Amino acid sequence: MSSAIVLLSGGLDSATAVAIAAQRHDKVYGLSFRYGQRHSAELLAAQRVAARQNLAEHRIIDIDLAQLGGSSLTDGSLSVPETPTEGIPNTYVPARNTVFLSYGLAYAEVTGAQAIYLGINAVDYSGYPDCRPEFVAAYQNLVNVATRATVTGSTIQIEAPLIDLSKADIIRWGVELGVDYGITVSCYQADEAGTACGVCDSCRLRHQGFVDAGVEDPTPYR
Amino acid sequence: MSSAIVLLSGGLDSATAVAIAAQRHDKVYGLSFRYGQRHSAELLAAQRVAARQNLAEHRIIDIDLAQLGGSSLTDGSLSVPETPTEGIPNTYVPARNTVFLSYGLAYAEVTGAQAIYLGINAVDYSGYPDCRPEFVAAYQNLVNVATRATVTGSTIQIEAPLIDLSKADIIRWGVELGVDYGITVSCYQADEAGTACGVCDSCRLRHQGFVDAGVEDPTPYR
Repeated sequence: MSSAIVLLSGGLDSATAVAIAAQRHDKVYGLSFRYGQRHSAELLAAQRVAARQNLAEHRIIDIDLAQLGGSSLTDGSLSVPETPTEGIPNTYVPARNTVFLSYGLAYAEVTGAQAIYLGINAVDYSGYPDCRPEFVAAYQNLVNVATRATVTGSTIQIEAPLIDLSKADIIRWGVELGVDYGITVSCYQADEAGTACGVCDSCRLRHQGFVDAGVEDPTPYR
Repeated sequence: MSSAIVLLSGGLDSATAVAIAAQRHDKVYGLSFRYGQRHSAELLAAQRVAARQNLAEHRIIDIDLAQLGGSSLTDGSLSVPETPTEGIPNTYVPARNTVFLSYGLAYAEVTGAQAIYLGINAVDYSGYPDCRPEFVAAYQNLVNVATRATVTGSTIQIEAPLIDLSKADIIRWGVELGVDYGITVSCYQADEAGTACGVCDSCRLRHQGFVDAGVEDPTPYR
């Protein structure tokens, strides 16, 4: 009986990661975060994805990253960029994936899951330090010494199956696995119904992915 | 202008870590967590320590580790052991220090702090995987690739100055730095006023530390 945790944002990438985990493991647990993000529409999308994939459990954890500030995704006084930016964009949330993975690790320890999946991608988000293969490798090294499993000589695998793929490759893989991208939300400024703005960084990358994959874009735009 | 984050539990070790950081840095930020622990008396102690040390800021973050379960410190249905246990004690909270450090990292990124101090100790807590030097080294490796600082070629130092010290050594160092241990709380079952039970693992280790250091134990016991 093999089981896995998936960090589930409700976006295109994490919905694909859920489908991959569901193909490889008997039991999949979804973990989402309410962290003061403006785009809370993504949590509704995460719940739709969790229901569609029949997850064993889906937990939404409240975390207090907005209190610390420093990102346009959690701080209303900063605006989300609508054109590509140099360096690290202001949508970067300090230590976000480090925080998310640490909760994933706690959840894996409690459930006895053998793996933690996350849908991070180095191609589209090269500006984010915590979306790179070096980050995943360093996190794996940490996990190898950080848990109860360490004592019994086993570990928990960090799986980032999409890290080197283009958006088009991710979409093609997901379509093969039957992912319905129409229920996912990537837009930084989506409304409650999940309708996307079509102009933010995230919307442009996503739409281009469908174009490049030769797949019709099912995203509801305003 | 040098600054540091200190993970501040309100216990003896973290109060000592705060004093060490205050000696080495111009500005010290305290970070505490409300994580469903039974011993919320320690948060009151953390506030007393923060006030005494004139911290630049002291933040208390609510985190939802109790929701995940798995520890007698956050789960009322498990009892705190009063005798030493073999292996990993049930007071171990899955991934706790990994989660705490991830918030410390976010806070350091936002404030621009150069270091994160934590009062973990491998001697007294050898049963906890996330209190060992290997854990700190692996976390440092992670930090080296995980933050904004990575891009500019700098990093944030993880400092665990007490990790190899006995409780008596920690107390001697703290007394030298003027730490008032009477305002700190280590007991797993302290009451609101900070009065200690005197019988739990944590109380026994602490009291023995004062005996070994030849320092009068200022802890209020019931």
